[in-house]
Amino acid sequence: MSGPLSHLNARGEANMVDVSEKAVTSRTAVAEGYVTMAPATLDMILDGTAPKGDVLATARIAGIMAAKKTADLIPLCHPLALSKVTVDFTPDRAGARLRVEAAVKVDGKTGVEMEALTAVTVACLTLYDMCKAVDRAMSFSGIRLVEKSGGRSGTFRAP
Amino acid sequence: MSGPLSHLNARGEANMVDVSEKAVTSRTAVAEGYVTMAPATLDMILDGTAPKGDVLATARIAGIMAAKKTADLIPLCHPLALSKVTVDFTPDRAGARLRVEAAVKVDGKTGVEMEALTAVTVACLTLYDMCKAVDRAMSFSGIRLVEKSGGRSGTFRAP
Amino acid sequence: MSGPLSHLNARGEANMVDVSEKAVTSRTAVAEGYVTMAPATLDMILDGTAPKGDVLATARIAGIMAAKKTADLIPLCHPLALSKVTVDFTPDRAGARLRVEAAVKVDGKTGVEMEALTAVTVACLTLYDMCKAVDRAMSFSGIRLVEKSGGRSGTFRAP
Amino acid sequence: MSGPLSHLNARGEANMVDVSEKAVTSRTAVAEGYVTMAPATLDMILDGTAPKGDVLATARIAGIMAAKKTADLIPLCHPLALSKVTVDFTPDRAGARLRVEAAVKVDGKTGVEMEALTAVTVACLTLYDMCKAVDRAMSFSGIRLVEKSGGRSGTFRAP
Amino acid sequence: MSGPLSHLNARGEANMVDVSEKAVTSRTAVAEGYVTMAPATLDMILDGTAPKGDVLATARIAGIMAAKKTADLIPLCHPLALSKVTVDFTPDRAGARLRVEAAVKVDGKTGVEMEALTAVTVACLTLYDMCKAVDRAMSFSGIRLVEKSGGRSGTFRAP
Amino acid sequence: MSGPLSHLNARGEANMVDVSEKAVTSRTAVAEGYVTMAPATLDMILDGTAPKGDVLATARIAGIMAAKKTADLIPLCHPLALSKVTVDFTPDRAGARLRVEAAVKVDGKTGVEMEALTAVTVACLTLYDMCKAVDRAMSFSGIRLVEKSGGRSGTFRAP
Repeated sequence: MSGPLSHLNARGEANMVDVSEKAVTSRTAVAEGYVTMAPATLDMILDGTAPKGDVLATARIAGIMAAKKTADLIPLCHPLALSKVTVDFTPDRAGARLRVEAAVKVDGKTGVEMEALTAVTVACLTLYDMCKAVDRAMSFSGIRLVEKSGGRSGTFRAP
Repeated sequence: MSGPLSHLNARGEANMVDVSEKAVTSRTAVAEGYVTMAPATLDMILDGTAPKGDVLATARIAGIMAAKKTADLIPLCHPLALSKVTVDFTPDRAGARLRVEAAVKVDGKTGVEMEALTAVTVACLTLYDMCKAVDRAMSFSGIRLVEKSGGRSGTFRAP
Repeated sequence: MSGPLSHLNARGEANMVDVSEKAVTSRTAVAEGYVTMAPATLDMILDGTAPKGDVLATARIAGIMAAKKTADLIPLCHPLALSKVTVDFTPDRAGARLRVEAAVKVDGKTGVEMEALTAVTVACLTLYDMCKAVDRAMSFSGIRLVEKSGGRSGTFRAP
Repeated sequence: MSGPLSHLNARGEANMVDVSEKAVTSRTAVAEGYVTMAPATLDMILDGTAPKGDVLATARIAGIMAAKKTADLIPLCHPLALSKVTVDFTPDRAGARLRVEAAVKVDGKTGVEMEALTAVTVACLTLYDMCKAVDRAMSFSGIRLVEKSGGRSGTFRAP
Repeated sequence: MSGPLSHLNARGEANMVDVSEKAVTSRTAVAEGYVTMAPATLDMILDGTAPKGDVLATARIAGIMAAKKTADLIPLCHPLALSKVTVDFTPDRAGARLRVEAAVKVDGKTGVEMEALTAVTVACLTLYDMCKAVDRAMSFSGIRLVEKSGGRSGTFRAP
Repeated sequence: MSGPLSHLNARGEANMVDVSEKAVTSRTAVAEGYVTMAPATLDMILDGTAPKGDVLATARIAGIMAAKKTADLIPLCHPLALSKVTVDFTPDRAGARLRVEAAVKVDGKTGVEMEALTAVTVACLTLYDMCKAVDRAMSFSGIRLVEKSGGRSGTFRAP
């Protein structure tokens, strides 16, 4: 770990940092997170008591649309013309949880870590919204950056 | 746990459910979450190596503004004229993490659970964005509804 | 047909009209429209060559979310806290077209005709977007208000 | 007609497709649509009983602004830095209708068909909103892509 | 002048203050501002060298639409369902400036001062944008609240 | 001063002008403005009776976020992927006012004058919102472009 918090100037004030001298390169990021729920809630989603298709379809679309709103949500994020966003779900019946993964690509001057994390968290929020009538105790955990590539800082992989 | 997924109609298609017959009542919700980071990152935020004030101020404002965007982010949420939003941070040096709590109030026909959860998650995302230059391995966990009151389903408190 | 264009003042300038003296009443609106396409395109959507579920699910969610953005899209529309939005599709294989219907409810001072029409048109646009790779000649027609109720002007039904 | 629905992956799930390998080229699109109304409504708009200028000016601006919101409205559209948007109206007194045409340009990796269609439909919606007090039976038809150029799929002209 | 800054809690942190106990009353606000420009620029706008109608029409619509975005722009503003917004322009040839006035109404728990001021400033910005090709030295001054009524603090009139 | 209003076509109708033939160059803009207030209000902000940090921090963040919304607020502005936005405040106790300055950079086909002016005005609006409980008579003046560089029209410096 090194270096200053690049969003803060010498007086500690928030700033949208200058990336004008950075090169336009191909950048990718993958993020993940887990929604833990009652086993019966997961069953409803997966087995069709709850119509599975639309719960996951709605959360997927919400996550994709949220990735495009990242610069509107996160105060100091640069706006980016994303070239790809995907959101995928993997059920873990044994753990009574659903894994959410988002992958984002851009050709730009800054990375897309925030876009991938935003897609994951809004997909989680939408899953909660779709199922909260039956399970208000659902929770989210393990939300993190899995890997990113491109840009001056190179490749990162979660340990 | 009981009842159907209220967002889905008989054919399993997503819908914004009809709340027109619900009463306008005073409703509140509190949500929480944790951002785990390297101890040195937390030190930077709290001790002033990283200018503490603005990191937390930026995340607080982002969380509050996000609560107002909930119906724009979550496909089937009803728009609501929120009457209060607060976002607070509590450091946990021993655990190398920061607790985020959001509280929301409304006089309306639906609850504000999603608004409180949205404020928490976007505050977490902003903390990540403000510190990612020094700590890409930060993660979010324990994001959940702490309590809610008001409306037909009454009071909920996390177990 | 009678009366002035209520959005324009005496000098012909656009205005968001004063509804402060209007009563809050329960208001509903239903709108419809048709997307005409090649028979093979409709087959793909309905028969599963093209995975039907998600095309319609995506368009349905887009229409619902757009209804909530109506006041942001239509310059002189009043913002409204919608209490219900639904979007439904009915295939017409003989006519090689898909019928889109949206129904909206509010308790408010102005009607929801624009919200229902906005939901229909954005659902149509999304269907086009999902299928344009195979059928750029798709078109929309018959977009209109089917009926509305509530408010000073009472009930309207399309002739 | 050929090829798969590019927005859907192998499992039929919605995705924002990867355009990162596509070339940045100059792309244009023109779309059109018609608003049919009572002859007296068209007269009001054109002859000045209804102050013509502002009805059309408001609809023109709404259409232009909507083109810039396309990626926010259509779930799987890529955000694009548009370089030109125009919206024009041509009255057809004999047909008691108004033709709406939008033209959009971009230098980008994807086309602007959706932006042109979105501009047309939101201009139509705004015309309806401006005149609905006198003519609730107005309807929209013939909304379609007229032509597009640029990109791998080349030039399209409506038959 | 008295009382604390109501947006800041005991620790000086920003908050969206709790208005849930406030009464819903009818509230109005009027704000004004001036755009000073070269006399020739004002002539172009007013005399038709520059087509007057659309410059003012565009600025008027931009101001009205901005009033509806106030809670999205100003971090701690409460969202409000505005019941009226108007924007008007008065030329002052002698002073080589244009006066902009906005009036806003709501039935709500908080006032609409910010909405009126936002409408005025965005109308000013749009006038600048429409004319900057010929006059980059235009400036805005005298932007202030003219009067407001309703709510606990009662009526205010600018001295 | 010379040339036509580039946003208006031959018929005087508003248009988003075609910049597709313009070169992508590095462009900067700096804008400024002043918020005049009661001396006691400025004291509260600066001396800590009012917790200074958060008032200015909130206004700074609001200004930065607003710069990113410029194309959504100003009808005929082109969307731009900004590479830098900063907002700074300089107190002027003698004049009982606060100077607001915003600086914006982009590599693009159009300039960022509007983005800098939008950041300044929304920071002013937020300062008003944060302090209006104690000083409704605050006003904004001297809002103008200080300088801009890049693009065909070259460098401008306020006289």
